[in-house]
Amino acid sequence: VVLTGAEVDQVAGLLSLREWQPFQLCATSVVLSFLARNPMLDVLPPDIVRRRAVGLEEPFVMPGGVEARLFPVPGKAPLYAEDGYPPIGSEAEVNTGIEIAGGGARIMFVPGCAAVTPALKQRLAGADLLLFDGTLFTDDEMIRAALGTKPGRRMGHVPIDGADGSLARLADFKMRRIYIHINNSNPILVEGSEERRHVEAAGWEIAEDGMEIVG
Amino acid sequence: VVLTGAEVDQVAGLLSLREWQPFQLCATSVVLSFLARNPMLDVLPPDIVRRRAVGLEEPFVMPGGVEARLFPVPGKAPLYAEDGYPPIGSEAEVNTGIEIAGGGARIMFVPGCAAVTPALKQRLAGADLLLFDGTLFTDDEMIRAALGTKPGRRMGHVPIDGADGSLARLADFKMRRIYIHINNSNPILVEGSEERRHVEAAGWEIAEDGMEIVG
Repeated sequence: VVLTGAEVDQVAGLLSLREWQPFQLCATSVVLSFLARNPMLDVLPPDIVRRRAVGLEEPFVMPGGVEARLFPVPGKAPLYAEDGYPPIGSEAEVNTGIEIAGGGARIMFVPGCAAVTPALKQRLAGADLLLFDGTLFTDDEMIRAALGTKPGRRMGHVPIDGADGSLARLADFKMRRIYIHINNSNPILVEGSEERRHVEAAGWEIAEDGMEIVG
Repeated sequence: VVLTGAEVDQVAGLLSLREWQPFQLCATSVVLSFLARNPMLDVLPPDIVRRRAVGLEEPFVMPGGVEARLFPVPGKAPLYAEDGYPPIGSEAEVNTGIEIAGGGARIMFVPGCAAVTPALKQRLAGADLLLFDGTLFTDDEMIRAALGTKPGRRMGHVPIDGADGSLARLADFKMRRIYIHINNSNPILVEGSEERRHVEAAGWEIAEDGMEIVG
């Protein structure tokens, strides 16, 4: 298991894996420190589930022989651990993407991203597959729907739409691109919606439960 | 939401309820203190989800007007918080049952119980419905199946079978009785198994996902 961060939706599934099945839990040392604050996660016994801190840009080999590395992505510390970190952190290790390479192909997995910077764009260019943060369509959609009080960027998620949105900022990419981590407020989830057609016309796919990606 | 304890399977579902929906979280102060050790659970904001400590035997009214009260049940602190408590605790508030009364009927909900003591049996007598710990059929079934290293009682669960098991100890009860909290190692889950027939012949029902109980 490789974690890109320690937000609840990234780590709560670990609680369902406490079946004495050995595996390795890889993440940055900062992400592992967030986990360590929650004794409940100790139900994964350290002798069965080894926690392995991996540095940014440090390649490591996963089962099956594919190579992975974590890289910094603009984002923030988990909601439950914001006290020690600025909302959108300068602390690079709090939020990462994963580059996965094998068989001559490269996958970029970026489920949480607060801004598409030139550096990030350069990093993603040339991959064969991009799985990217599609949490919100517009920055204020949760506020307008009375589902929350914070704009998307404050939550660490750049919106899809708008001049600084991921759709515009990544418009010249040609690789296969799939929006993932889509919030239930996002209209691209609605079959036939204007927003969904817009995203699909730009060449993006929209992830769904049980999706299988065949190379 | 009323918690009988703070073991992972009792509290992890709270992480899926972090949708800004107001509700009250009722439990003993000791159980709430176990939750407080895990900052991840702070994603339920205190101004939206009020945590309310209720004492043992202290009646409180739930939505719909039914009355509830927590009562002590032999058991133990959660696995991740055993350090401060003996394995099977003398600290009564760590593990409780819930008595729910309304419309002239009484339900007893006891999902974790390490031993059926005379005091507990007296407490349960006279209820209209008993939902009781059916985790394991035999005390050592997880060890024999190489699924764990601890006997059931050490995990806070009296087995169904045996002279001190719940089936024998509650054999003279006549109210509707349903085994709940059944582990995937328990043969009563297998349709037509000898163990299941044995339990059903003794008048017990076996809970299943989505079960509805109509009075």
